[in-house]
Amino acid sequence: MAAEQDPEALAAARPLLTDLYQATMALGYWHAGRAREQAEFELFFRGGPFGGAFALAAGLRDCVRFLRAFRLQDADVQFLASVLPPDTDPAFFEHLRALDCSDVTVRALPEGSLAFPGVPLLQVCGPLLVVQLLETPLLCLVSYASLIATNAARLRLIAGPKKRLLEMGLRRAQGPDGGLTASTYSYLGGFDGSSNVLAGQLRGVPLAGTLAHSFITSFLGTEVPPDPMLAPAASQGPRVDLAACAEAWLDRVCAHLGLGVQEPHRGERAAFVAYALAFPRAFQGLLDTYSVQRSGLPNFLAVALALGELGYRAVGVRLDSGDLLQQAQEIRRVFRSISAQFQMPWLESVSIAVSNNIDEEELTRLAQEGSEVNVIGIGTNVVTCPRQPSLGCVYKLCEPLPSLAESRAFAQLSLSRLSPEHKRLQQPAPYRVALSDKLQALVARLRAGESS
Amino acid sequence: MAAEQDPEALAAARPLLTDLYQATMALGYWHAGRAREQAEFELFFRGGPFGGAFALAAGLRDCVRFLRAFRLQDADVQFLASVLPPDTDPAFFEHLRALDCSDVTVRALPEGSLAFPGVPLLQVCGPLLVVQLLETPLLCLVSYASLIATNAARLRLIAGPKKRLLEMGLRRAQGPDGGLTASTYSYLGGFDGSSNVLAGQLRGVPLAGTLAHSFITSFLGTEVPPDPMLAPAASQGPRVDLAACAEAWLDRVCAHLGLGVQEPHRGERAAFVAYALAFPRAFQGLLDTYSVQRSGLPNFLAVALALGELGYRAVGVRLDSGDLLQQAQEIRRVFRSISAQFQMPWLESVSIAVSNNIDEEELTRLAQEGSEVNVIGIGTNVVTCPRQPSLGCVYKLCEPLPSLAESRAFAQLSLSRLSPEHKRLQQPAPYRVALSDKLQALVARLRAGESS
Repeated sequence: MAAEQDPEALAAARPLLTDLYQATMALGYWHAGRAREQAEFELFFRGGPFGGAFALAAGLRDCVRFLRAFRLQDADVQFLASVLPPDTDPAFFEHLRALDCSDVTVRALPEGSLAFPGVPLLQVCGPLLVVQLLETPLLCLVSYASLIATNAARLRLIAGPKKRLLEMGLRRAQGPDGGLTASTYSYLGGFDGSSNVLAGQLRGVPLAGTLAHSFITSFLGTEVPPDPMLAPAASQGPRVDLAACAEAWLDRVCAHLGLGVQEPHRGERAAFVAYALAFPRAFQGLLDTYSVQRSGLPNFLAVALALGELGYRAVGVRLDSGDLLQQAQEIRRVFRSISAQFQMPWLESVSIAVSNNIDEEELTRLAQEGSEVNVIGIGTNVVTCPRQPSLGCVYKLCEPLPSLAESRAFAQLSLSRLSPEHKRLQQPAPYRVALSDKLQALVARLRAGESS
Repeated sequence: MAAEQDPEALAAARPLLTDLYQATMALGYWHAGRAREQAEFELFFRGGPFGGAFALAAGLRDCVRFLRAFRLQDADVQFLASVLPPDTDPAFFEHLRALDCSDVTVRALPEGSLAFPGVPLLQVCGPLLVVQLLETPLLCLVSYASLIATNAARLRLIAGPKKRLLEMGLRRAQGPDGGLTASTYSYLGGFDGSSNVLAGQLRGVPLAGTLAHSFITSFLGTEVPPDPMLAPAASQGPRVDLAACAEAWLDRVCAHLGLGVQEPHRGERAAFVAYALAFPRAFQGLLDTYSVQRSGLPNFLAVALALGELGYRAVGVRLDSGDLLQQAQEIRRVFRSISAQFQMPWLESVSIAVSNNIDEEELTRLAQEGSEVNVIGIGTNVVTCPRQPSLGCVYKLCEPLPSLAESRAFAQLSLSRLSPEHKRLQQPAPYRVALSDKLQALVARLRAGESS
């Protein structure tokens, strides 16, 4: 199907992903005989996002992909003709039809570079008409990618290196492609993974995810599982009825915790058993559907201990409401106590994941010394960047080369910044340039080669 | 090319546009023998966005498109198998391979309906496994579309019906598809058009756009236009050198305004002439590249009057910085004075467009009684919805039908709300139901038919 007839064709691959004024200006340049004049634009931002000093440059690979594919199809040109004046010279449209980016040169910061206000992320050189048309798509591809990568990097700096950070904001993004971009570039910025399956499939982002409240509320506890039997982890020994085994453990857990055995919700327990039967090696519990202390936690422990008897180790719990830090401390205390009581040492270190509208302030709290939180899921606050929802990049035509006088003044300024010991003309102190480890190793190898 | 091998395939058409936990829960349901159990989910929001009472329901057509196309390809199933436990029953993947939405029923508010907290925008019924998988894509498709439609509707309510509102935020969106969604649904919400050419091409959104500062700064004034001659609008009479004619008008304009003829920037004037030669019937000027009063305005007037002599009417000016309301008043005053002085009455009502980080507060100011602003372009503040960057929709499994006792209580409550004159059992006042104009006309036609 031709791209122009396919409403589903990817927006990012469409050459008309631009503002109309780029097309009207293109006609203006063409009319003035300047379409092929060489021009250079720089793409940069003016202030560090979120009040910080830096950004991460990202989205540059998407720009390269866009530039490679850039070519107006007949239908694109026809559409432009329909929105430009009817007496526009047909030769202009011939010019558009022949347009591509083969004469465009792009210099870019490497993807993932630190970027600073005023320093170009991209420098785009080429014929004036085409580099003008590229303004909007390049801004569109770089701005949000860099913004969210920077947001993710800030969250990673707050969380420190050990907490596992997961992006889970697909449903809060600006549609499917916004979600894909968010998952991709929050990973680039330092997150450990995403819940977005498509980002895993298309971009190789590591995936994470377990179960939601709806799974738990969908079980009443009266369901009869088609097969409640589970074989031991080592695949030796008889299969065991996991549901019955969990009931037996529930008695012991409730006795230890001082709870009535009727208190934990039976539908929630049925949901945990169903999930454990599907994922015996990756059992996780979402604890706060009914009551963490009186239902979610004892139900999780009952199922985790039943699995433990069979040689399986539950991997985690998740909290999605309330005071996440405080609940994590309490849950860890219970894990330690149950672990000692029933001699299941692995239970002590079951991972505690939290989510629920976590922003920089709450993350600071969750990452504090002594926190028992291991995994932090962030949705809205990473994807929508509410503190600054747009990076505000600009794409500016570079003024002509500096005059001789300006360059002379710049040379004097540069020299004035050189310290006296480097500036003295006899026996100057060498100006030391720091080398990367890799470069240093290369120099060492070269020197070793010289001396051998 | 198969979708699974094409990294450019549209995210919105991909069945794995979902959170991983939907897939893990799907396995859980399948394992529990509940995959085909009928379930109903409702999609709604909990609070009016931006502190308002209402939202506009939007994105529903995108949902229908997604549901129609929903089908897991081999590569999708293989990818899921790679992220689920290796010992997962192969029959589960067979189940996924056969999955589509043919058994799914969706009831939705009509696109563009008013929507209120707690009232479902979508009700989705069907087999539990598939309607669970649909949660994330449906939320993703509805939430942002409804949020931005609502944002646009609020801005329209503030602006009133007469101001022309243009969306120009493509470069501030969450990537290309975010931009396309923003342009589409801000139009649905009440904007008049967009700068986004792709939204015009794919969705039929009316387009608007003229020129940017880069066009103006790219002209030094030393360029020689290949053809500065312009024929009169009526196509009779000799062609005229527009640049020379504009110079002559500049003298008269400057004299009238008390400006030195050297003050207006010659590069800016060359840019206006170049644009006017390309768009003689749609000439617009961006006034604030150098100085509105001392350069942009006199240069615009010189070119507009030169065009006017040839029978063309300039259509507008744009301001992108400074106090927009105050400058618009001053510009209108100058338009009136020049219009009277040179007997060009059409010049009085040339459209004044403004842009530059306009939010609800600034829009209120620009829309006030007596404002001379005609067109308002909004980018960041419509596209990113900074006051509330996500609608926060939820997708909740409906609890089982209410009990007989609950329904009985609800019946009593309903009756208690009926006013006494409707409630009385003898000769009650009829309960009047308001009819739409269309329905009323239909009733009238039917009655006329009866009596004829």
